[in-house]
Amino acid sequence: IVHLHILVLFRHIQDPASQRLTWNKPPTSVLVIKKIRDASLLQPFKELCVFLTEVKNLLVYVEKKVLEDPAISGDENFGAITKKFCTFREDLDDISNRVDFIICLGGDGTLLYASSLFQESVPPVMAFHLGSLGFLTPFKFDTYQSQLTQIIEGNAAIVLRSRLRVRVLKENWEKKARVDEKGIILTNGDVESSRKAMEYQVLNEVVVDRGPSSYLSNVDLFLDGHLITTVQGDGVIVSTPTGSTAYAVAAGASMIHPNVPAIMITPICPHSLSFRPIVVPAGVELKIMLSRDARNTAWVSFDGRKRQEICHGDSITITTSCFPVPSICFRDPVNDWFESLAQCLHWNVRKKQNYLSSEDEDF
Amino acid sequence: IVHLHILVLFRHIQDPASQRLTWNKPPTSVLVIKKIRDASLLQPFKELCVFLTEVKNLLVYVEKKVLEDPAISGDENFGAITKKFCTFREDLDDISNRVDFIICLGGDGTLLYASSLFQESVPPVMAFHLGSLGFLTPFKFDTYQSQLTQIIEGNAAIVLRSRLRVRVLKENWEKKARVDEKGIILTNGDVESSRKAMEYQVLNEVVVDRGPSSYLSNVDLFLDGHLITTVQGDGVIVSTPTGSTAYAVAAGASMIHPNVPAIMITPICPHSLSFRPIVVPAGVELKIMLSRDARNTAWVSFDGRKRQEICHGDSITITTSCFPVPSICFRDPVNDWFESLAQCLHWNVRKKQNYLSSEDEDF
Amino acid sequence: IVHLHILVLFRHIQDPASQRLTWNKPPTSVLVIKKIRDASLLQPFKELCVFLTEVKNLLVYVEKKVLEDPAISGDENFGAITKKFCTFREDLDDISNRVDFIICLGGDGTLLYASSLFQESVPPVMAFHLGSLGFLTPFKFDTYQSQLTQIIEGNAAIVLRSRLRVRVLKENWEKKARVDEKGIILTNGDVESSRKAMEYQVLNEVVVDRGPSSYLSNVDLFLDGHLITTVQGDGVIVSTPTGSTAYAVAAGASMIHPNVPAIMITPICPHSLSFRPIVVPAGVELKIMLSRDARNTAWVSFDGRKRQEICHGDSITITTSCFPVPSICFRDPVNDWFESLAQCLHWNVRKKQNYLSSEDEDF
Amino acid sequence: IVHLHILVLFRHIQDPASQRLTWNKPPTSVLVIKKIRDASLLQPFKELCVFLTEVKNLLVYVEKKVLEDPAISGDENFGAITKKFCTFREDLDDISNRVDFIICLGGDGTLLYASSLFQESVPPVMAFHLGSLGFLTPFKFDTYQSQLTQIIEGNAAIVLRSRLRVRVLKENWEKKARVDEKGIILTNGDVESSRKAMEYQVLNEVVVDRGPSSYLSNVDLFLDGHLITTVQGDGVIVSTPTGSTAYAVAAGASMIHPNVPAIMITPICPHSLSFRPIVVPAGVELKIMLSRDARNTAWVSFDGRKRQEICHGDSITITTSCFPVPSICFRDPVNDWFESLAQCLHWNVRKKQNYLSSEDEDF
Repeated sequence: IVHLHILVLFRHIQDPASQRLTWNKPPTSVLVIKKIRDASLLQPFKELCVFLTEVKNLLVYVEKKVLEDPAISGDENFGAITKKFCTFREDLDDISNRVDFIICLGGDGTLLYASSLFQESVPPVMAFHLGSLGFLTPFKFDTYQSQLTQIIEGNAAIVLRSRLRVRVLKENWEKKARVDEKGIILTNGDVESSRKAMEYQVLNEVVVDRGPSSYLSNVDLFLDGHLITTVQGDGVIVSTPTGSTAYAVAAGASMIHPNVPAIMITPICPHSLSFRPIVVPAGVELKIMLSRDARNTAWVSFDGRKRQEICHGDSITITTSCFPVPSICFRDPVNDWFESLAQCLHWNVRKKQNYLSSEDEDF
Repeated sequence: IVHLHILVLFRHIQDPASQRLTWNKPPTSVLVIKKIRDASLLQPFKELCVFLTEVKNLLVYVEKKVLEDPAISGDENFGAITKKFCTFREDLDDISNRVDFIICLGGDGTLLYASSLFQESVPPVMAFHLGSLGFLTPFKFDTYQSQLTQIIEGNAAIVLRSRLRVRVLKENWEKKARVDEKGIILTNGDVESSRKAMEYQVLNEVVVDRGPSSYLSNVDLFLDGHLITTVQGDGVIVSTPTGSTAYAVAAGASMIHPNVPAIMITPICPHSLSFRPIVVPAGVELKIMLSRDARNTAWVSFDGRKRQEICHGDSITITTSCFPVPSICFRDPVNDWFESLAQCLHWNVRKKQNYLSSEDEDF
Repeated sequence: IVHLHILVLFRHIQDPASQRLTWNKPPTSVLVIKKIRDASLLQPFKELCVFLTEVKNLLVYVEKKVLEDPAISGDENFGAITKKFCTFREDLDDISNRVDFIICLGGDGTLLYASSLFQESVPPVMAFHLGSLGFLTPFKFDTYQSQLTQIIEGNAAIVLRSRLRVRVLKENWEKKARVDEKGIILTNGDVESSRKAMEYQVLNEVVVDRGPSSYLSNVDLFLDGHLITTVQGDGVIVSTPTGSTAYAVAAGASMIHPNVPAIMITPICPHSLSFRPIVVPAGVELKIMLSRDARNTAWVSFDGRKRQEICHGDSITITTSCFPVPSICFRDPVNDWFESLAQCLHWNVRKKQNYLSSEDEDF
Repeated sequence: IVHLHILVLFRHIQDPASQRLTWNKPPTSVLVIKKIRDASLLQPFKELCVFLTEVKNLLVYVEKKVLEDPAISGDENFGAITKKFCTFREDLDDISNRVDFIICLGGDGTLLYASSLFQESVPPVMAFHLGSLGFLTPFKFDTYQSQLTQIIEGNAAIVLRSRLRVRVLKENWEKKARVDEKGIILTNGDVESSRKAMEYQVLNEVVVDRGPSSYLSNVDLFLDGHLITTVQGDGVIVSTPTGSTAYAVAAGASMIHPNVPAIMITPICPHSLSFRPIVVPAGVELKIMLSRDARNTAWVSFDGRKRQEICHGDSITITTSCFPVPSICFRDPVNDWFESLAQCLHWNVRKKQNYLSSEDEDF
């Protein structure tokens, strides 16, 4: 019998439960991210910072604008502690490679924000929900001290949430910009085109939609260089498994556990009845462009931010990022996820009563 | 200008709130339907019967098998009252035109059962849920006395729940029966075929499915004599608006208020991605038959009962019945329905929290 | 037995096939609507107008801007005919009660436009698709002469497409307008508020969405004065049965035949998994307002037009209009609709092959 | 900065295009599977066998019952060739490790059948569709000679289709069997229970449904030992990515490319509106059992076969199999899949025309 060499190709299936936090040496620095303009977070934030600094002897990084909040800058008691903090400003100061882990206070948005701060390697994130459980914020604040101690001791499971690396290539960018700024056409059609490329790391999803227009331009979707379909409708969502339970689920997608190495493509209100969402393997390269015959532009956003227009010739290239977000679990990747499904989406939560009354056997 | 005669064609739109219960003279008889084999219903049933008989001086009709329950027949205190009841047996005694209204105790199934007892005109029905609210059982038992008094005084809104009249025509029925009974073919292919027609009044839905088979035969769907489509999949549901919130909603249908004069057609797990449910006007005639090239039979049931096989040549003809079920409202047709949607189906019931975390503006 | 008065309440179920065009006396005038900026329609348009004027001796109404198209105004041969036309300008000249019927050339949009021209009674409409079949344009142009002759002789079925009457009430309208125009606040908060009310007749749908914003404000939905639910998501569609096969179907709605007297409510990408579309009886009054705690405004449009912002205190009131659009059928209301479902939406069109391969019995 | 060891945990993302067929030495034997009772396959089958035997000098394995077909056994010309075949009988003769590759003729069912013949390692499969393209049968027969030559030379891409390993553990099996066979209870309740375990390799899906009953028993679903939800409805489908485009898609699932290492869980007509399908990582262990309070039994089937009843105490344990099916691609895993989506499911195939007529800009 001929021996086949194909078995070695079969991908190794990893036990999600095996992913655990491991420190080389004890962590010494922590970035604390707090949702701003939310008074209910002030007290927990202060309490946490004192604990981290005084009890755990950690160097605390805080964003400058957080400390500028009068409710914080005006608190004399807290003032002494803040002097020990390292501060930084978004988009100006580079804190990559300077913090050992991150703590988020205040909703799933804080974790998306944390993700956006680290365009390359991301430290592990411990995220607290102060109100109700979120998909990305599994920890409750009540027992933060014991939980933090566990984590600092390396006693925690993590889930590696894959991100998407998105490259937007804009043609004729300079020319357009000049028009936009002044409202006058400074450059004519003969000017040499210039290109602008931007890159984003996305934790939930890239959304291409019709923006302020009433009509979506048709957009073409390519996979590894092949045109696979054209989207007509309100738009299309390219999401990570983490993002499958955010906007994609509202648009009709199935829900994917964050440990599945995949990318989800979900149309938004497609014209075609048969345009069901699809799931493709992590690692493929997707590209989205306006169709040649499109009459309107499209708009793209990244985790709900940096919204921008996409014109003819522009392209959005999407693939799995090399830099996932290590998200610290409250219990483990499986239990945390199903707990979120039930709490956040009421997934299959129902009265035990039969509403299908014709199935009632006695009558 | 030429005057057009078309406006008279525009259907009169009736205000659902205007449908109210009206008695010619006070009601004198009531049919009480109780789910059997449910111990929790015994006490309410007895209490209710005493009230109806002793206080309201109504003649109470009860099914014989209900009184045969040892928990009732063995109760000496209750014995005296039961002597005043009129009893009947399902399928044997005709009580149509003998009861002024109906009271149901025990879940949506009791109302489906009540419906099945009246193949023509149905008296108004007051239905109690003893546990959780059902779509067909809006009344709670706590205040049954005052509520009953209101109804006897004609002070109540009703919703006329349309039913479907279903005719099943079976070809070669006698021949098949002989084979089935003995397991031996008593008649040969030359015998003259005989037909059997049956008729059912259906409150929720007619379901045609693959029954015990693994594979559905293809079934053809005709509307007013025209073939409109062929169903490939697990089956098809033809439902009333009342039934739209039962099996049909589980199969993906939109939910239709019972006051809409319509018939809903919902495929069950259709092979085609584009086979979306459709809603057609009340009054059309639908017919379902096995497709000519079908390799398996199908099975049909009526409000979950009377399950039977459908073979080549058999037909199921469905139209809106002339005999709706007048269902007494707890409040009114609109409020009762939305209350049921929330209670029974958790319709759009959710935490106020944003799960779409990327839509969180501050981060 | 007490006779019940409820049966008279049961709504008369009309046979859709019975709706036919009936003229008091032969029609003498016709409005021809042509999609502008579509060169392929020029020849059919001219041919049709000659036929209507010369052969059928009808007075032809045409919109002024149609004749201003150089491809028409520059055609000397056609010039003589155009002199016989009555022309009018949208929003300036009132042609209600002046035309006996309408002919549309060029896609579903022409019928929506025709609908918008008649805010009260609408003459019957014959709509041609020049390319592929539309839901609202059943006629093909090849045999227009014989078809027109049939219609002029009153030999045609019609479907009365219900419309929605939408009233938008804007609070503090004047004040806002002054701010908007100049960009400077001309009036302060103490100024007396003024209100502006507008009314629209809608054939497909009213859409309330987030407009250019990334986030929908929560909107509250009232039915006959009762708050029935709050919409969180991309928006909500309130559509006629005619509109159920337009935007609503893309958002997941079931498809409703135009003869069903109903209003459909369909959420767009709702946050709640259980927010299934619902169908309520024609004649109810719906009202949509921003929720009290909404942080963003919403936007409303009517059949895709007249897009405008909705702010706190503004309301959108929707009910079934008294003025349906009598749409002339190619065959009849049932066949035309199912033909459109197949042609426009590929409804349940599929290969006969089994894709559910595990159902293949022989293996 | 503390170095984190977590990056090594991030799963290697494999380029699906890199999976190619590789032979140690040229193949010498081939199993040919032909759908029986399909006359259209006879000529291709004979032609293929002659080519494989005479031209390619391969040892051909054929199932005994295929050759017993009179249309084959009665063909004298073909008789000489058949003498060179190796024949075997399903369930009796073991051909594992004896064939180098498999050729399927006749529909997706043939590949499911091939899968069932190999409960451990499966040779690579080349599957022809004779009629229309299937998900599992990408090759057309016209050019079989050149295609086979390519494959024998090792010049082909493969997709490793994961299978599910399903273990059914039945409690009290012997006791029940005795009752079932005779219809008389041969053993009393005191008899010691005996267990029966069976194992199946499944390529598409495991289906647990209500079988011939009208009502599904509630079934509990466990993941890695934790109860994650209870299914109320018509049933539940646990499928491979390959199976996601079979029964699961009909029940509403998103479609998953076969290269995604995942398991899909899809409810069939669930009672809860919020019971959306979910996708979990390959390698988890699922277990399905009747709920403690279930009143009916359930039925299970494996790729549509071996249907059997599941009673209280029985369990179905499902995980990713170590033995995938190496399926030879016509082009490559990406193109083949999207071609199948379009051909088999009409995925997003539509007329270019706008059906959303209100989006037509010119009117």
